[in-house]
Amino acid sequence: MYVIVVYDVDVKRVTKVHRFLRTHLHWRQNSVFEGEVTRAQLYEIKRTLEGLIDGGDSVLIYELPRENFNLHIIGADKNPAGEII
Amino acid sequence: MYVIVVYDVDVKRVTKVHRFLRTHLHWRQNSVFEGEVTRAQLYEIKRTLEGLIDGGDSVLIYELPRENFNLHIIGADKNPAGEII
Repeated sequence: MYVIVVYDVDVKRVTKVHRFLRTHLHWRQNSVFEGEVTRAQLYEIKRTLEGLIDGGDSVLIYELPRENFNLHIIGADKNPAGEII
Repeated sequence: MYVIVVYDVDVKRVTKVHRFLRTHLHWRQNSVFEGEVTRAQLYEIKRTLEGLIDGGDSVLIYELPRENFNLHIIGADKNPAGEII
């Protein structure tokens, strides 16, 4: 499956969340990550994020059956090199 | 088609972008909107956003064939009431 992850977390926890997501996904924009994952990996990502976030933090994970979308980028492409881990 | 819009814009322009997107889509989280649109509406959304944003601002529009995903929300659900315009 393919996931798009968007986080909205307190600045105190941004670095931890960002660093963790980089180990599983590729970075698309400021607070957006994407990538192909297995069901087990998705479970692990969710479990770890639950431990990392706090307070009013929120993370959305869109789970798509496959990478089946067109991406329109308006303005700056924050990750033109496609930083893939 | 169904779109997921994620914006990363300077605080000076957040209100304008947010207000505009509210007229076409429903708000999901801080800087995330979603909704069913026609091709003409998508074109209009892109054109208007191009006029609203500036500098290093960036907006991602994921265009999916249809609303075909599971959404996992970790932490706070910023929009539990499903504010739909």
